[in-house]
Order: sequence, then structure tokens, then C-alpha cells
Amino acid sequence: MSKVITPQQQDYSKWYNDIVIQADMADHSAVRGCMVIKPTGYAIWEKMQQTLDKMFKDTGHVNAYFPLFIPKSLFEAEEKNAEGFAKECAVVTHYRLKTDPQNPGKLIVDPEAKLEEELIVRPTSEAIIWNTYKGWIESYRDLPLLINQWANVVRWEMRTRLFLRTAEFLWQEGHTAHATKDEAIAETRQMLEVYADFAENWMAMPVIKGVKTANERFAGADDTYTIEALMQDGKALQAGTSHFLGQNFAKAFDVKFANKEGKLDYVWATSWGVSTRLMGALIMSHSDNMGLVIPPKLAPTQVVIVPIYKGEEGLAKVSEVANVIKQKLQQKNISVKYDNRDSQRPGFKFAEHELKGIPIRIAIGERDLENGTIEIARRDLLSKQVIKIEEVENYVSTLLEDIQTNLFNKALERRNNLTTKVNTYEEFKKVLDEKTGFVMAHWDGTPETEEKIKQETKATIRCIPLNNEQEEGVCIYSGKPSTQRVVFARAY
Amino acid sequence: MSKVITPQQQDYSKWYNDIVIQADMADHSAVRGCMVIKPTGYAIWEKMQQTLDKMFKDTGHVNAYFPLFIPKSLFEAEEKNAEGFAKECAVVTHYRLKTDPQNPGKLIVDPEAKLEEELIVRPTSEAIIWNTYKGWIESYRDLPLLINQWANVVRWEMRTRLFLRTAEFLWQEGHTAHATKDEAIAETRQMLEVYADFAENWMAMPVIKGVKTANERFAGADDTYTIEALMQDGKALQAGTSHFLGQNFAKAFDVKFANKEGKLDYVWATSWGVSTRLMGALIMSHSDNMGLVIPPKLAPTQVVIVPIYKGEEGLAKVSEVANVIKQKLQQKNISVKYDNRDSQRPGFKFAEHELKGIPIRIAIGERDLENGTIEIARRDLLSKQVIKIEEVENYVSTLLEDIQTNLFNKALERRNNLTTKVNTYEEFKKVLDEKTGFVMAHWDGTPETEEKIKQETKATIRCIPLNNEQEEGVCIYSGKPSTQRVVFARAY
Repeated sequence: MSKVITPQQQDYSKWYNDIVIQADMADHSAVRGCMVIKPTGYAIWEKMQQTLDKMFKDTGHVNAYFPLFIPKSLFEAEEKNAEGFAKECAVVTHYRLKTDPQNPGKLIVDPEAKLEEELIVRPTSEAIIWNTYKGWIESYRDLPLLINQWANVVRWEMRTRLFLRTAEFLWQEGHTAHATKDEAIAETRQMLEVYADFAENWMAMPVIKGVKTANERFAGADDTYTIEALMQDGKALQAGTSHFLGQNFAKAFDVKFANKEGKLDYVWATSWGVSTRLMGALIMSHSDNMGLVIPPKLAPTQVVIVPIYKGEEGLAKVSEVANVIKQKLQQKNISVKYDNRDSQRPGFKFAEHELKGIPIRIAIGERDLENGTIEIARRDLLSKQVIKIEEVENYVSTLLEDIQTNLFNKALERRNNLTTKVNTYEEFKKVLDEKTGFVMAHWDGTPETEEKIKQETKATIRCIPLNNEQEEGVCIYSGKPSTQRVVFARAY
Repeated sequence: MSKVITPQQQDYSKWYNDIVIQADMADHSAVRGCMVIKPTGYAIWEKMQQTLDKMFKDTGHVNAYFPLFIPKSLFEAEEKNAEGFAKECAVVTHYRLKTDPQNPGKLIVDPEAKLEEELIVRPTSEAIIWNTYKGWIESYRDLPLLINQWANVVRWEMRTRLFLRTAEFLWQEGHTAHATKDEAIAETRQMLEVYADFAENWMAMPVIKGVKTANERFAGADDTYTIEALMQDGKALQAGTSHFLGQNFAKAFDVKFANKEGKLDYVWATSWGVSTRLMGALIMSHSDNMGLVIPPKLAPTQVVIVPIYKGEEGLAKVSEVANVIKQKLQQKNISVKYDNRDSQRPGFKFAEHELKGIPIRIAIGERDLENGTIEIARRDLLSKQVIKIEEVENYVSTLLEDIQTNLFNKALERRNNLTTKVNTYEEFKKVLDEKTGFVMAHWDGTPETEEKIKQETKATIRCIPLNNEQEEGVCIYSGKPSTQRVVFARAY
């Protein structure tokens, strides 16, 4: 294959981009900052969607769909939220084109088709959804509302990177309404647990669960919970957030309900989301210089079988065995592809399947058949094993679980190695620059200190971990007393 | 229940709207012409999506995702397509809001954030996709490309109706690229068959498969194939279209491939789509004055069990049996809900489940238990039957199939009754006004005649049926010779 991936060690950012492009995951588009998600990448996103959707439904949620556009006056209603997103909004101002009288065959925006009120392309849907909920909620009997939406959103980013930061991205956004504060907080935390479960047990990506500081909170939230992952280059990635919105949106949109005693009160809200950004996190958690590595539970194709043969007769002999193996594996709900293209040689196929991250490759040669054996290669370790054909089902089943576990353990070990406790600001800066990773340090709890550290080092507080260990100490920056360490890092 | 549905016979249009709103399918939104798809409606759309997605994959297609926005210069490239959609395009002209200096707390569009080139919110994605395919196709080895996208699109409609015609709607759009004309035409026809299969065997909605006339063709297509259904009020509804695009988009975006002989040629294209409009078609195919009727194969809940009891002890006794029945049905892959809410009386529940179109209702009373019987009601005929408890699994399985078949047959019979052959223009107009439905008439084949008939009667040619019977005749309008009848109707 002529495709070459820049080694991670040489240029991490270029390595990432090479993987995305060369493994056919996504592509740049003609629209500034917008990506095309290619079939190979989209198939993984579909697996993510299916898994998450089931988790949401198992926790009592249903799906719905709300408009793409938000009238400006609604968008403004919750001031903090509006302020937080105002600088990155795509705005629709006209609803018609017309032929350019100066330039036949070309179109111009028809100045007579100007909207009375501009429409914002949703950067997030709290405003349009809470304006809708107002009509749906009258009494406690209408609560809770547990609704999720799969949608595209637009945030006009100046610096974009495929999957990690794009002007348009795909996501899900849950928006729930509750009668009590406690119930809303419980929901917020439940969805954080769902996200952590998905990240760790499906993406094989260990995460720290925690709460954001006021500076890093979602615009319009009382509290933002987050799962934070660590990429191979030692930078943090916020992988999912769950917001306790208090009564902020209920007040902005005047959404009240009658409680059991008939008294009117504002409704309590949550919202939570993960996006195609997870695709970037997946790539940067496991892949290597040969290409993508996909955890088996999210791999659209888990096993690929490659025949090694001479001539049509040879292929027929190998195919007979290959098809039996394929069928046996499929009966165990393992997804298998038999790559019997005659246009490519086995070596080319091996490289391609490695590049695209298929967890297990089975090679079957004519000589193997005589011995009753096949060769099995695992993508994560790039190691091979010859086994007896009759062992294949059990071997592959177990191996898929092994790979899933191994990927998680490897990522966890890396994260542990890249998590450092520091006690001074000097040490803090040195670790950030030389070792990178999560830095656990005491902080005085003020937004001012946090902001100064960010300006001086580009590190932010990723979160205050849930059930954080309490420990006396002094802030690395101000020297003021502190009761706990928080998680700092440079982040995507 | 206080909800009242306007009878069909009194006001069909109001009846339709009442069903959509009162069965909780969808709602109007704060955005002109955009709807909110409520959870009850969205669950049906999800069943449609899952079914269609599997059909697309079974015919070799994969999913991908392309940008929401199309730069104006790309949008213009295929002139007919651009012209066809220019008058209904939402246009993004700015990418930032700022605080209104005159009006603190309010936002205005930042005039300094004007885009150099306007972005069109996709009304359909041929332009952005063919501009992308240009980079993906070099040789015949890259063909065919068989890609589908699930997405939202925007067409600025002046008169909107929930599901049937909305400014934003959800749909799928397939976009395929082929080396030969024959292969592209075969693909176009294959997808028409997939749509017809879905309409008839899942939606229980009979359709006529045919080709559109030049006047009714998709802007930019060489041929548009369509499935046409007939609603209860005798109006036609275009339920899905599959376009043979010739080399029009390949030429507009300069997409060439090297064939096996190394010669460069333009690529052949198709596109095909169905949308949330199918939800409207579903409602208008089967529902009645009691509410929605959903064909079992698309019903998110196929069976609801309602307990009839006095006191907690009574409920416990009934629940024991209900839960066993529920489990047994679920083992047969039947989706069941046990409605044991103690806040509502059985009569209220019966009316609600009828309104929402659940195919089968099982009522279990304390007295029934003594007799070992339960009462089963079918939504389509509103009839009831008492059966022995031990027969429930087989009875329900068979009944679900029965209901599915009955709904199709009823719709087919209605369509047959509302299909009329006419030989004169007088007869034509009389049938359109008094009987409504599909009118089969001779037409001289000219766009002029078609246009005049449309202006005078509001009837359009829905299609020229595939494998249409050839028959000598004269055009009802011009008296010129004709070789076949075509399908006229007033349409949604």
C-alpha cells in the first residue's frame, strides 16, 4: 500500500489526521470546518449510536425531534446560555435565492426574501425545547419528561479538526424535566454513569467522573458533570457532559407545574450529550503507527478472513473452509467479512485491514488445510497464533473479549502512568511540559486563580472528581489553604 | 377523555390534524413551518427507519454523512437542480451574534461576521455529495458507490401541514455512482421496488409504481420513478421517488472515471429518498374517527394489556396473569405494554389506546380469571373476542398478521373503488369533483396538455405506470392519438 502514516512520535497531530483520512473515517468538505463522515467511520458511529440509544431507553428515555432553527428571540431568553453561544452561531437571514440579473445562470440571495426575525441554526437545543415543554407541562402528572434527540448541531469554530472540533457535528442531547431538585440531580448523575459505562466498557477508554468548576460549566447550567479521558499524547479530552440546569430554563421560558398540593412551581431541568467527538477519542485512545485500532465491541467488522491460495482451484478449496468458519462465527453473533477479492494480494489485504483496525484477522492457506490449522492475528498486539480449525469459534470468542480487556487495561495503565501529584507551581509546569497528562494539584477554589493558571500554562481544571479524597494542602498558585486536589491538564 | 376528533366526513383536513395532535404524533413549533415530532410519533418513525435501513443494507448500501450546508457556488453548479430549489432555500449569511448596544441583554447579528460566500441549508444533497464524490472516484474499481444518508433537509414552504409538508423534514437520501447507464437505471428501479415493498408490506399501503412525466420530474433528473398512494379522501400522495440522474451531476462537478480500457468517461448517477411525509401517508391510509390505526409491523407497541379489578388484591391477582401473558408474547418478539396505571379507569385507557392506534388490546378482569378467559380487541375492526388464556400466544400472533393483511386489503379495495377509467374531459372533471381518486385517461404526451389540465382542474399526472397496458385511444384534452392511459389525480 502506498499509504503512509506519520509516526505518532514524530508528529502526533499529523498522525491523527493521517489515520482519519487514510483509514477512510472522514474527509474535509467544501464547507469551511464541516466534515464528511465516510462509510467506514460512519459504521462505527452507528454502533455507538445503537449502544447508547439502548442505554438511554433502558433508563426510561424516549426519542423525539425538535426544529433545527431557533428564532433569535427564543435563543436570547436564557441569557447566560445565549451569551455562551452567541459568538459561534450560524444565522439564517433569507429564505429564497433568485437569478442574478447581472450574471445569467448564477444565483443571488433575494433581498426581498429577508426574514422578519433571524433564525439561529441550533448550537444546542435547550431554548427551542424548553419553549416547547412549556406547552406540554401543566401538572406533576406530566413529569418527569425524559426525552432524547439525535441531531446535527452547528457551532462556528475558527480552528477545526476532523471529529474533534467541527463547525457541524452529530450528537445526542437529552433534555429532561422534573418535579424536584433531587430528582433532577439524580438524573444528571445517572446519565454521567451511563456515559462512563459506555466509555469504559464499550470504547475501552478509562474516564475520570467529576464536576466542572464554575469557569468550565455549560452556559446556563448550575452544575456540569463530565467524564474526562486521557489521550496518548497526554492531553485530556472531555468525552461527555451531563448538566444540572436548576430552574434556569424553566424561569426563562416560564415553565411551571402544579404539584400534588396544587401549588405552582418552576420545573427542574437536566441536559446531557455526547457527540461525534467520541470518534476522535476512540482513535486517540487505541490506534498506533499501523493505523486504527477498534475495540471489538464497537467494530462493525470484528473478524476478517483472508484466503491464501494459488489459482481458482486453490481458492475453491480455501473458500469452502472459510465459509464454514464464517457461518460458525456469525452464529455466535460475531460479525465476519470474507475478503476474497482476487484483485489484491494477501499482503495488501493484511495492511489494509490493519490500517482500518479490524480486531481479528484469520488467514487460511492451502497448506494450512492439510494440517487442519489456521493463523489468527490480533490487531491490538500485532501478534499471530496458529490454531486448530475446530477450535476457531471458542478461540475467537475468547480473543475478542481479551482484546477488549487488553485495550482498556493498556489505556488505564497509560493514564495511571500519566497521572502525577504535584505540590508546587514549578513542579506543576515542569510536569505539564515534560511529562504531560493529568496533574493532581491543590487549588484555592477561586475562578481568579484558575484563570491565571490557564493563561500562564494553557492547563485547565478538567474536573473535581466525584467522591474526591479530602486532604489538607495549599494552592500551588496562591498558597491559600485547600481541602482537595483537582485534575488539571492541557486539553483538546 | 375530553379529546374529540373531528369526523373525517365532516372535515377531512381537520380530522387529519386532530389525529396528529391528539394522538401525540407531532406538534407545531415556534419556528414557522417546522414541526416537533413527539415521542409517540418518533417511535413509529424509528421503526420505519430501522426497517428501511436494513433493506438498504441488504441491497448493498452503506451509510455516511455529508454537510448540512452547501456553498452557493456549488449549489449553482447543476443548473436545473439549482433553479428547481432556489425559491425555497434557507440561506446562512452570518456566523456570529453580538450584544445589541441599543438594547442590553438582547442580541443582534454581527454585521462584521458576514460570510464571504452564503451557505444554503441543504434542500437535497446532490450538489455537496457529487462535489465530494469527485475526490473519491478515479477508476472503475471505485465504482459503484452505494451510499445512503439519514438527515434533515429544509425547503421553505409557504403552506405547511404537519408531516405532509414542513419547512424542515427528516429523510433518507441515497446517492449512488455507477460505471454504466444500464447499471444506474437498474439501481434506480431496484430502489423503487424497495420502496414499494416497504409501502405495501410494512405500511400496508398499496402503491402504483411508475415514471413521472417531464413536468413532474426531479430537478436535475433524466427520469424520476415514483410510488403513488391514494389517501382516504381520494387524493394521491407521492410516497417515495427514485431518480435516474444520467450524467448531469457528473458533468456539473466534473466527475470522471477511467474504465477498464483506461478511457475517461463521466459517471452515471441515481438518487432516491423517502421522508417523514410517510408518517402522514400512514395516518391517512388507515386511521378512523376514533384515532390512529397503526399496522402491526410498524407499531412500537403491538399489544397493550389493561387490568380490570377492584382493590389492590384484585390488581395483584390480575397482574400475576398479565405478567405471564406479557412474557409469553415477548418471547415471540411481540412488543407488549402492561398498562397498570392506577390513576386512570379502564374506559379511559381503552379510549387512549384506541386513539393512539395500538393494534391489539387485551383486557383481563377478575371474573375472567375464574373462567380462564381474556378479552381481545382488535383496533382495525374495533371488534372483540373472548378467548381461553392458554390460546393467547397463538391467537395474538395470528391476529397481528390478520390485522396487517386486513389493513392492506381494505386500502387496496378502497383504491380499486376509487380508480376510474374515463374517456372524455367532461367525465374526467366530473369524476375528479364528485368521486375523486385516481383517474386513468389517455393523454397526448405533451407537457402543454398536461399543464393546461393542471391549470383547469388542479389534477396532475401522478405517473405512467410501469409495464403499462398499451391501448389505442385519444387524449381527453386535445383529441390527439394516444397509446396508453396515465394516472391523473389531485394530490397532496
